[in-house]
Amino acid sequence: MSLSDRAALTERIDVDLGPRSYPIEVRGGHAAKETDFEDFVRERLEATWAGRGCRKALVVCDAQIQDIWGDRYARHTTNLGLKTRIAEVPTGEKSKSPEALISLYDRLIDLEADRHTLVVAVGGGVIGDLAGFAAASFNRGLPLIMVPTTLLAQVDSSVGGKTGINHPRGKNLIGAFHQPIGVWIDLESLDTLPPREFRSGLAEVLKYGVIQDAVFFDFLENNAEKALARDETVLLHLVSRSCRLKADVVEKDELEHTGLRAILNYGHTVAHAIENVAGYGAYLHGEAVGAGMVAEARLAARLGWIEAALADRIERLVRRLELPATIEGCDMERLIGAMKHDKKNKLGRIRFVLPRKLGSVELTDAPTEDDVREVLRGMMR
Amino acid sequence: MSLSDRAALTERIDVDLGPRSYPIEVRGGHAAKETDFEDFVRERLEATWAGRGCRKALVVCDAQIQDIWGDRYARHTTNLGLKTRIAEVPTGEKSKSPEALISLYDRLIDLEADRHTLVVAVGGGVIGDLAGFAAASFNRGLPLIMVPTTLLAQVDSSVGGKTGINHPRGKNLIGAFHQPIGVWIDLESLDTLPPREFRSGLAEVLKYGVIQDAVFFDFLENNAEKALARDETVLLHLVSRSCRLKADVVEKDELEHTGLRAILNYGHTVAHAIENVAGYGAYLHGEAVGAGMVAEARLAARLGWIEAALADRIERLVRRLELPATIEGCDMERLIGAMKHDKKNKLGRIRFVLPRKLGSVELTDAPTEDDVREVLRGMMR
Repeated sequence: MSLSDRAALTERIDVDLGPRSYPIEVRGGHAAKETDFEDFVRERLEATWAGRGCRKALVVCDAQIQDIWGDRYARHTTNLGLKTRIAEVPTGEKSKSPEALISLYDRLIDLEADRHTLVVAVGGGVIGDLAGFAAASFNRGLPLIMVPTTLLAQVDSSVGGKTGINHPRGKNLIGAFHQPIGVWIDLESLDTLPPREFRSGLAEVLKYGVIQDAVFFDFLENNAEKALARDETVLLHLVSRSCRLKADVVEKDELEHTGLRAILNYGHTVAHAIENVAGYGAYLHGEAVGAGMVAEARLAARLGWIEAALADRIERLVRRLELPATIEGCDMERLIGAMKHDKKNKLGRIRFVLPRKLGSVELTDAPTEDDVREVLRGMMR
Repeated sequence: MSLSDRAALTERIDVDLGPRSYPIEVRGGHAAKETDFEDFVRERLEATWAGRGCRKALVVCDAQIQDIWGDRYARHTTNLGLKTRIAEVPTGEKSKSPEALISLYDRLIDLEADRHTLVVAVGGGVIGDLAGFAAASFNRGLPLIMVPTTLLAQVDSSVGGKTGINHPRGKNLIGAFHQPIGVWIDLESLDTLPPREFRSGLAEVLKYGVIQDAVFFDFLENNAEKALARDETVLLHLVSRSCRLKADVVEKDELEHTGLRAILNYGHTVAHAIENVAGYGAYLHGEAVGAGMVAEARLAARLGWIEAALADRIERLVRRLELPATIEGCDMERLIGAMKHDKKNKLGRIRFVLPRKLGSVELTDAPTEDDVREVLRGMMR
């Protein structure tokens, strides 16, 4: 392939967080890259404090993709002269546990890790959260490179520095903010992603259009089928633009102190309730967000914030992306109850992030319980 | 007492870390203060993101001082309208454990802590490290106010944001940097500190003079007896100047990335070896630092970096502060072996922070093993 083709399949997003700034490199799967990752890591180590003494690496990888991806990245860090060990982590949310964390600490200790030992997290959101928190809390902070391999992790959890594990009494209860020194996104890793998981990631992509960027929403409308077919050029734009949009929010509210980061929760008040009530696994996160975005667009229309036509338009795109636009297997009272426990709430009122127009949202507690019931009733199956 | 007396017994040190800046307030024990702490906390909450939703507080306190200090600070946070719980932590290094950490998480969960719940750490270094790490890692970071009650914690661990717990295979292996929103130092808490612990803190005070401030070293020489007698005016200067000097270093190297923070390790290569070899409890940390500073001053003289007269002067002050200037109960080969495992080392050479002149030090691996043996031999009893 020609150099210009290759350049066309590469995007770089700079996340500007002062001394904790880092780039996200997005590569089309057909760009030559066997040594590119090594160049990227070398550059990141040289550009940061981490490089001066980095001699070792721990590659933390989802067991399901260990053979394809874990071994490949371990080979790359070995090629860079780093003494490398692989930690294989069982697939699934249950790995965000104190036990899995302690097992990563043990691997680091076996490796005689010091403060400059590099952690490379290869996998989806679970791996990023777990390996990220191990990196955040071992020796007061190790350099971290994220290699998200699911669409959801690429467009969401790989930007923002959130890391953490679950506690029996709360999700993500133990955690820290820890920015990576770089994020490497290889679109080829999406080739083998199961369709439901792929579509689940598209829900968050659609979300960025609604909350921040009407032009991006148009683009997704015009390319929905290509997106579903995993067209590489379309994916490159979807992923890199999503990262840029999330970075814009994170840059203004790195530690979630000002409340601005809350806008990322459009669709999520209802989604979290669905996930809670429908039970683990019935809805993937992105599927619940799909239905949640439809519900919250309807709620905005009910308040008169947007035209019903825009809510229809959002619902249509949710459906075209083959995401659920209805709520199944959930009891109304339990949904309302779950929403009342959402951590965004204040003074007992349920809070939502609702669209004011395409590309702009606001945090509000304006909807009454009756409004919510009315909207949900129309979506229940 | 008059207002001017009261002002004279107060110092405020501003630690400038950009958005993570915070003040250290040092109060003489006779300054009226029953409500001052409440004013301080109110001001700190208002000045930071933490204030917007702070409704609860967990006061973490060393069991030994629970009756005097823990209850008092819990009363203060209660007076501020915060729903307050106390977590009593057994005295001693063994409380820097995963079990103690989990027990603090449980207390926070029982309190239904959210991201704005205030953690107040009342005690020495162990409490600061443990409660600080709980604050760092619960819900991705809770606001923290440190109330160090030992001299060592006041002049050392309360500045710099280091938090952490021990792992069976390494001290402070699990930890993070987490800056407090404020540090409150009440010199009255030193009244009941056992003499050995008090002198142990003076070792770190002396250290700041050697590494950064010759005038401060002079002051300590001129006021050694008053310092030992815990004269409040002298203590106020010793504590506040030590905090300022440590803050100067931390401001330039917050996350220990540039290596500048290494200068704080003067006396510590030998001290850590003594602590390791003599066995837990034989030397308090500051006592080992006393002997370590003498050894490393001698080493600098041996290299021709300083005059022998300056090494004598440092040793004299160590002795006047009733700190050990000799090494007892240690085997030479084991000391050398321990030094070879110091984490400051590179390429197998033992590294030291040695004085170039009074008030200035440098990290070096210039001393040979023979130099070290020769110096230690002269100090062994």
